[in-house]
Amino acid sequence: MASGAKRGILERLNAGEIVIGDGGFVFALEKRGYVKAGPWTPEAAAEHPEAVRQLHREFLRAGSNVMQTFTFYASDDKLENRGNAVSFTGQQINEAACDLAREVANEGDALVAGGVSQTPSYLSCKSESEVKGIFKKQMDVFIKKNVDFLIAEYFEHVEEAEWAVQVLKATGKPVAASMCIGPMGDMHGVTPGECAVRLVKAGADIVGVNCHFDPMTCVKTVAMMKAAVEKAGLKAHYMVQPLAYHTPDCGCQGFIDLPEFPFALEPRVLTRWDMQHYAREAFKAGIYFIGGCCGFEPYHIRAVAEELAPERGFLPKASQKHGMWGSGLEMHTKPWVRARARREYWEKMKPASGRPLCPSMSAPDSWGVTKGHADLMQQKEATTKDQLRPLFNKSDSKN
Amino acid sequence: MASGAKRGILERLNAGEIVIGDGGFVFALEKRGYVKAGPWTPEAAAEHPEAVRQLHREFLRAGSNVMQTFTFYASDDKLENRGNAVSFTGQQINEAACDLAREVANEGDALVAGGVSQTPSYLSCKSESEVKGIFKKQMDVFIKKNVDFLIAEYFEHVEEAEWAVQVLKATGKPVAASMCIGPMGDMHGVTPGECAVRLVKAGADIVGVNCHFDPMTCVKTVAMMKAAVEKAGLKAHYMVQPLAYHTPDCGCQGFIDLPEFPFALEPRVLTRWDMQHYAREAFKAGIYFIGGCCGFEPYHIRAVAEELAPERGFLPKASQKHGMWGSGLEMHTKPWVRARARREYWEKMKPASGRPLCPSMSAPDSWGVTKGHADLMQQKEATTKDQLRPLFNKSDSKN
Amino acid sequence: MASGAKRGILERLNAGEIVIGDGGFVFALEKRGYVKAGPWTPEAAAEHPEAVRQLHREFLRAGSNVMQTFTFYASDDKLENRGNAVSFTGQQINEAACDLAREVANEGDALVAGGVSQTPSYLSCKSESEVKGIFKKQMDVFIKKNVDFLIAEYFEHVEEAEWAVQVLKATGKPVAASMCIGPMGDMHGVTPGECAVRLVKAGADIVGVNCHFDPMTCVKTVAMMKAAVEKAGLKAHYMVQPLAYHTPDCGCQGFIDLPEFPFALEPRVLTRWDMQHYAREAFKAGIYFIGGCCGFEPYHIRAVAEELAPERGFLPKASQKHGMWGSGLEMHTKPWVRARARREYWEKMKPASGRPLCPSMSAPDSWGVTKGHADLMQQKEATTKDQLRPLFNKSDSKN
Amino acid sequence: MASGAKRGILERLNAGEIVIGDGGFVFALEKRGYVKAGPWTPEAAAEHPEAVRQLHREFLRAGSNVMQTFTFYASDDKLENRGNAVSFTGQQINEAACDLAREVANEGDALVAGGVSQTPSYLSCKSESEVKGIFKKQMDVFIKKNVDFLIAEYFEHVEEAEWAVQVLKATGKPVAASMCIGPMGDMHGVTPGECAVRLVKAGADIVGVNCHFDPMTCVKTVAMMKAAVEKAGLKAHYMVQPLAYHTPDCGCQGFIDLPEFPFALEPRVLTRWDMQHYAREAFKAGIYFIGGCCGFEPYHIRAVAEELAPERGFLPKASQKHGMWGSGLEMHTKPWVRARARREYWEKMKPASGRPLCPSMSAPDSWGVTKGHADLMQQKEATTKDQLRPLFNKSDSKN
Repeated sequence: MASGAKRGILERLNAGEIVIGDGGFVFALEKRGYVKAGPWTPEAAAEHPEAVRQLHREFLRAGSNVMQTFTFYASDDKLENRGNAVSFTGQQINEAACDLAREVANEGDALVAGGVSQTPSYLSCKSESEVKGIFKKQMDVFIKKNVDFLIAEYFEHVEEAEWAVQVLKATGKPVAASMCIGPMGDMHGVTPGECAVRLVKAGADIVGVNCHFDPMTCVKTVAMMKAAVEKAGLKAHYMVQPLAYHTPDCGCQGFIDLPEFPFALEPRVLTRWDMQHYAREAFKAGIYFIGGCCGFEPYHIRAVAEELAPERGFLPKASQKHGMWGSGLEMHTKPWVRARARREYWEKMKPASGRPLCPSMSAPDSWGVTKGHADLMQQKEATTKDQLRPLFNKSDSKN
Repeated sequence: MASGAKRGILERLNAGEIVIGDGGFVFALEKRGYVKAGPWTPEAAAEHPEAVRQLHREFLRAGSNVMQTFTFYASDDKLENRGNAVSFTGQQINEAACDLAREVANEGDALVAGGVSQTPSYLSCKSESEVKGIFKKQMDVFIKKNVDFLIAEYFEHVEEAEWAVQVLKATGKPVAASMCIGPMGDMHGVTPGECAVRLVKAGADIVGVNCHFDPMTCVKTVAMMKAAVEKAGLKAHYMVQPLAYHTPDCGCQGFIDLPEFPFALEPRVLTRWDMQHYAREAFKAGIYFIGGCCGFEPYHIRAVAEELAPERGFLPKASQKHGMWGSGLEMHTKPWVRARARREYWEKMKPASGRPLCPSMSAPDSWGVTKGHADLMQQKEATTKDQLRPLFNKSDSKN
Repeated sequence: MASGAKRGILERLNAGEIVIGDGGFVFALEKRGYVKAGPWTPEAAAEHPEAVRQLHREFLRAGSNVMQTFTFYASDDKLENRGNAVSFTGQQINEAACDLAREVANEGDALVAGGVSQTPSYLSCKSESEVKGIFKKQMDVFIKKNVDFLIAEYFEHVEEAEWAVQVLKATGKPVAASMCIGPMGDMHGVTPGECAVRLVKAGADIVGVNCHFDPMTCVKTVAMMKAAVEKAGLKAHYMVQPLAYHTPDCGCQGFIDLPEFPFALEPRVLTRWDMQHYAREAFKAGIYFIGGCCGFEPYHIRAVAEELAPERGFLPKASQKHGMWGSGLEMHTKPWVRARARREYWEKMKPASGRPLCPSMSAPDSWGVTKGHADLMQQKEATTKDQLRPLFNKSDSKN
Repeated sequence: MASGAKRGILERLNAGEIVIGDGGFVFALEKRGYVKAGPWTPEAAAEHPEAVRQLHREFLRAGSNVMQTFTFYASDDKLENRGNAVSFTGQQINEAACDLAREVANEGDALVAGGVSQTPSYLSCKSESEVKGIFKKQMDVFIKKNVDFLIAEYFEHVEEAEWAVQVLKATGKPVAASMCIGPMGDMHGVTPGECAVRLVKAGADIVGVNCHFDPMTCVKTVAMMKAAVEKAGLKAHYMVQPLAYHTPDCGCQGFIDLPEFPFALEPRVLTRWDMQHYAREAFKAGIYFIGGCCGFEPYHIRAVAEELAPERGFLPKASQKHGMWGSGLEMHTKPWVRARARREYWEKMKPASGRPLCPSMSAPDSWGVTKGHADLMQQKEATTKDQLRPLFNKSDSKN
């Protein structure tokens, strides 16, 4: 099936359809042994295409409508900068990633999105034209490979994101712009709302956030973006692709600052039930492009697809291997396990950590080292609330 | 490379080499969308060979020397019993699993192990000959496919395990026998030591435990087996393939009884650092076949291989994508993240759950529903200790 | 020693001196067996004067400069309303409370403060004159007994607090006004700042908050009051008398709504080290009347006095029985206990609950039963931040 | 009322009556400002008799039948040893303590028990006659003051406890002997059972344990004592006076080794509901002298008396100020607080710590510094079980 045969991203969103994104590749492939934590570069697209292809396929089965090219941190300056011994050029990696995404997208109802992300060039204060040149080089590959649309994601500074959007927009493809910020805004304190307005003005068709914060914080942040865009009399679609980690304790820079990042985040991973709650809240907030980022495994995306199945009218393929709300346990030999085959049980579940010597929250490393205390607490205030919301919603107030 | 060219399992163990097992397939593939929780049957070997092959490959890259055929619960009675709509026969599934394991084993230094597990026939009190007939049928496939050795695993009753060992032994292949028990012994209270002695007498070359309990509990249980076998003047090798979940709160039936089983176990997942501790303790206990079961992802096996690299003399391939003790963070842009690139940091880490409304331990469902309270607490007593040991070992006593 | 011989409350505060309050009597005496939880009425002043006198004495020894008459909920309408079988009249109770406070105040450097609190009459919508009549009746006793100053405390509605202040002010005594509100303001949403301005305009010389929230939340609330009073060009002194419980999880109505109220609050009790942190932060915020409310025991007040000893120039009597920062352990027989005789140890302490089946936070009963969810979360947001601040301040960011 | 008019301790126990002890004085008076942590000496009996008298009275009101003289660590060698600036002689302190206990005992149905505890002389290896001389000196006071019976308590070494019993027995008064040990036995590994047998043979009429461990661990330890005494064909009565702290994580030396000892134990304090559970379990174990030690406040003793009111036929005086199972909340203005006025609510309560940065358990300081790891874990094993039992008993297995 050729891509042309499919309805495009804007066609879908304009029609009010829900578009389900995929999960983050770097964390998933790190656990599978193909990405190195630290550099986080995507050379596996060229080195181990079978591993990347398989992960695409799993997300597709789980319900994803978007195959993002595995090109995170694949700009030439990043590949060099991190000093990673990579035996493939940036162009080879970007091309291989496009081919894999297209191959799997063609196996189902998914579009290919070419992705760019923040650059070391911007951080080291290179000029607008130099930074744009970096993005332009990746665009050349994406156009050659004819991706369906483009995503500029994981930007901490709205200015760099604007530059990226401008380059992407010039291709004529639909453009999504996603920042890795929380309710406190970008690294210069530009609010989510102002970021969104600027990105829409720069040409983005879709705006939102990804990574750095947990699902409910991200939903809140995008809701702030949406309110500001609407207040400005502009039009856009909205996307959200959060972490799969509970991060009630992180500051404005998100999970990077948590002491557990990146090698001890396990206890924070969301359950599939947490994910169903997230999907519902995102949808209720008017966000229709709903996916995931670091920590997401295919079953997390499936949970999003299952929660929204009533609206979409169908279940993903991978639901053939999943009973809704634990119904797969109905035949279990032990009566008390059978008793778990019901929605109320899992909605009320407050899972134990199995770690009696560990706390429930951490004090981020950045507390005390940057800026004044009051500022830090203000950031905290803004993020804590939404972290706790999903828990409260499901809570049995008596326990 | 033909299997014959490799040194066999007993050759390796007799030479004092460490053999690294793989991780459990049913949980890993459930999260990837190919296995249904509840039935837990392995039809994916035939339905989605690419997914099973990829998981084998990841464990191989991570350092596994054993590719277990994905034939858990693949006995005919189990496949029928669970009523799972499977469009492949048991023979097709078992054969496909053998082919996949062999294909990947040939890509590296791994052996193929044909696996059988406990049967519904035994639980429904069928005769010894009927139960043995079930195992015999799987043996026919394993012999036809010429696996390198055989594993009878996940047995709760030593009697059924003995029957399995007798059937497996008759093939002439080396036989490993692994029960899913903790320090309290099997479901009739037969101690780990007595179980081990009986299994060795039945013909097992290797004995140990898998699944149901966390790593340190399993190491303790196998240590009890080893002591009894030696006391009986017998000879054997030892294996351990535990959960990747912290389970300080479970009773004699293991994690099945935890309220979080099987859909909310996320907060319990071990970190890679927990795994290094496990590998070290297993080795110190004289256990040389060290692998994993439910919850293990490839990076967990890699951690085992990395911990034991000094003894083995080499790192696994996947370590090309992993800096030991967080050294991959050395180039991070933030100084406080760079400060995490050292062993002491991760060894002392007590990761937060990010779940302030959740407890650290659960009360298993089975408390209060079976037997007397005193018995339950006795079981608890036996398991709690080893759950806490790894935490204490690493603890900074001042915090 | 006659009261006249002592410098009055305003004399002290005007001179920039720190005035240390006492702790709450109803909770302390409930644990000692003299007050009934639920009614919380102070008939013990007449029934068991020795118990009330002893508690006064302990707070005096601990450093309190203020002996509040034990007249909480001692208005006639309250004593009747709660249906408590009390064999003393309201007048008898109020008089006995004055005598006890005076007796102990005369034993040291303390003033007697006559206290009134919110009335059932206001809640049942009685008229201003009726409510004022209630307060007037208590004033008659306080004037007859010649207390040193007056406190209107534990008001949830600023309007009732204003009425109280007006009645108290008419006596010519100095008047302190203290509401039991958090950063979200009173039960009608009047902000702390506006409450404070209105109370100063009504005649209060000192404004602040008591009860319902933990120390850091209360300090924050009073800081909001102070900012508003100063912005309005008014003058006042400030007081804070918080709970001795950690309440990071409570909503706008404070600890009443926590599931643990009032019979399972034990795990939340602040340590003496938490108290020292509170005293320091209150002082830094410009609050000079620093005391406590429910949950405070004499050692908590002593910790306040010890923390502020450098500013005040002296330690309280009870410090004869307390080594600063654990120095009393210097002679302990075990070296690892001796190692605790230092400030850094206790400042970094993150004490365990000893309750592995319990969570670290609760979902208040009122979540979901009142108003919209967004409002509740907004209130939460405001309170969470300051709850966590003391913990973060002391935290070792690596653990 | 003269002591002679009351039925003696053995008369009561022989008749099958429950005797309720008091709580520990040193911790309670430390919080009130009269005892110094570290030395823990009881000079307050002479210095501040009103404070000691009041605490006696509160325990009496709460239901105590035993007023222990406040003579803990009041041996001459201890008073000197700790270098505490005490302006009273040992004799004066011991006499004052007797007078206070007698005065309050005479106000109700309580007996006076003269108490001795372990001595520095024994620890510094003084001779049997020297150590006995220390005890003898305290006996002279107790006989002169005509206490009703004697308690040798808080012994870590059974040999010293035997010496004490021999001295006490020589007075002709009934003798109780209580060690501060857990299930692992005394500091030389003498089991609780053997300790008990030896103490009975030395002349003790009542044997048991006090301090160092939480209630359920102490009940278990005394049950071990009882079984051994009965197996030896001996006769005795049994007593238990545990901590009011949850200590699931402590080793053989009890709470001294917990990092929180003694200044951050707050989060571990038992609720009144925990105490009711303890009282019931102690009674079911055949222990009829049931009291408390460090951490106990009067309301804890009242909870013991309330739990056993059906057996005893009456409530203590302080229950006039307490509604059973929260019934005092029945008139609360908020419906969700009224909903807490029932037994099921409080029995299922799993109280939050309000401390999201704190763990639920600690690693005792002594882990790793004494003896081998295996031994320590064995001790842990023995104590953990009973710590968790009360929690499990009340748990709702689904949460």
